[in-house]
Amino acid sequence: MTYCLAIKVDDGLVFASDSRTHAGVDYASVFSKMHQFDLQGDRFMVLLAAGSLATTQAVVNLIRRDLENSGAHCSLNKAAYLFDAATYVGGISVKVQEQHSLAMQRSGFSAEATFILGGQIAGQPHEIYLIYPQGNYINASPSTPYLQIGETKYGKPILDRMAEAKTSLEDAARCALVSLDSTMRSNISVGPPVEVGIYRADTFKMGHHLNLDTSSKLYSGVQKHWSESIRAGFNSLPRFDWEVQR
Amino acid sequence: MTYCLAIKVDDGLVFASDSRTHAGVDYASVFSKMHQFDLQGDRFMVLLAAGSLATTQAVVNLIRRDLENSGAHCSLNKAAYLFDAATYVGGISVKVQEQHSLAMQRSGFSAEATFILGGQIAGQPHEIYLIYPQGNYINASPSTPYLQIGETKYGKPILDRMAEAKTSLEDAARCALVSLDSTMRSNISVGPPVEVGIYRADTFKMGHHLNLDTSSKLYSGVQKHWSESIRAGFNSLPRFDWEVQR
Repeated sequence: MTYCLAIKVDDGLVFASDSRTHAGVDYASVFSKMHQFDLQGDRFMVLLAAGSLATTQAVVNLIRRDLENSGAHCSLNKAAYLFDAATYVGGISVKVQEQHSLAMQRSGFSAEATFILGGQIAGQPHEIYLIYPQGNYINASPSTPYLQIGETKYGKPILDRMAEAKTSLEDAARCALVSLDSTMRSNISVGPPVEVGIYRADTFKMGHHLNLDTSSKLYSGVQKHWSESIRAGFNSLPRFDWEVQR
Repeated sequence: MTYCLAIKVDDGLVFASDSRTHAGVDYASVFSKMHQFDLQGDRFMVLLAAGSLATTQAVVNLIRRDLENSGAHCSLNKAAYLFDAATYVGGISVKVQEQHSLAMQRSGFSAEATFILGGQIAGQPHEIYLIYPQGNYINASPSTPYLQIGETKYGKPILDRMAEAKTSLEDAARCALVSLDSTMRSNISVGPPVEVGIYRADTFKMGHHLNLDTSSKLYSGVQKHWSESIRAGFNSLPRFDWEVQR
């Protein structure tokens, strides 16, 4: 399993992903699920990937091939809008899945993959898109400024509470870290290291890219502080009537 | 959907459940999912139910019928151990499901139901059992002292952090409330009122049974305090290096 998320705030975008990949429980390994692309100066895009690793690797390879091939029908450099890029990635994903789906089904596996594409093209707003296995997409809205793929439920409550359009980029990144930490605590198929990317709008380059193991000072600091805050908040919750009366 | 949970601590048991039931999105209604039974003085049992409402209602009716019928082959009063009672409930559940499964499948519905049975028989420890739709069961362990059914993921992180064998009954009840609140915030198919039952070991009766709407003083107090604690904890998380340097 996988957990990736992206948050769109007024100031820019935050990307975050775990790195655990497994084929069954006895073959767990570490793969980055956050893919940056070397694009023209007028654009910046990051792709987060969940699902069949064979599918997501093939999709990323084909995206890179199209970038190197000036004759390609479409590419991340040729897309006029970010939603065009999302449609393009969705199209590649569907093709890769179709290529192997029959063989995968025979073996009882799914070739499905889900992506989040985020970024900005000069003159346009920064955006994030969730690309479904079927190739279509949705984008985030001001009232729901985040998108998640993979094992999404454990880490959703903190996003629902804290992620808003006016949240600062750094707070959004901390929110993503807490969301990932909650997920990793509750589901062993989501695991470290954790990658966090911070993109400030109109810069067209990743401002910060962190690759954090749980032993890193930052990650363990956030983890420890958050645990203590939760515990302190919990211990000061209102008492029941009968406790007060005693 | 539904969210029910039970926590087993050294001092006793906590039961909690939401009350939202729906057949599609346009028929949502309120049904209690926490069932108490009028048993002999040497025993106490509570059943939490998730899944097809038709199945869970039939199961509860058949359990009650067996209690009233002294000739019944088995009943919650006749079970020698709590796991016997779990096997008995599982058997009824499977029979009810089989009775309607073909017709349900034809209509594209599932007759499945999942239960948590918790309680105590005199001379034995207090226990909680999760009864699968297939009729078999698992019980909680000292290292995982809680069981959940229905929409379980959103509310799991707080349980993983706070629920331990040595937790007080009241803290376990607050933990259950927070777990339910997180779930209701993130999933509209889980909804109020919330029921919380507190059973102190060796008392053989429910010590406290709360039926809380979100407007109740207790529930809204917990909700407000928890939101504020999360926000305060979040705002005091460690800063990134580049924030400190600024």
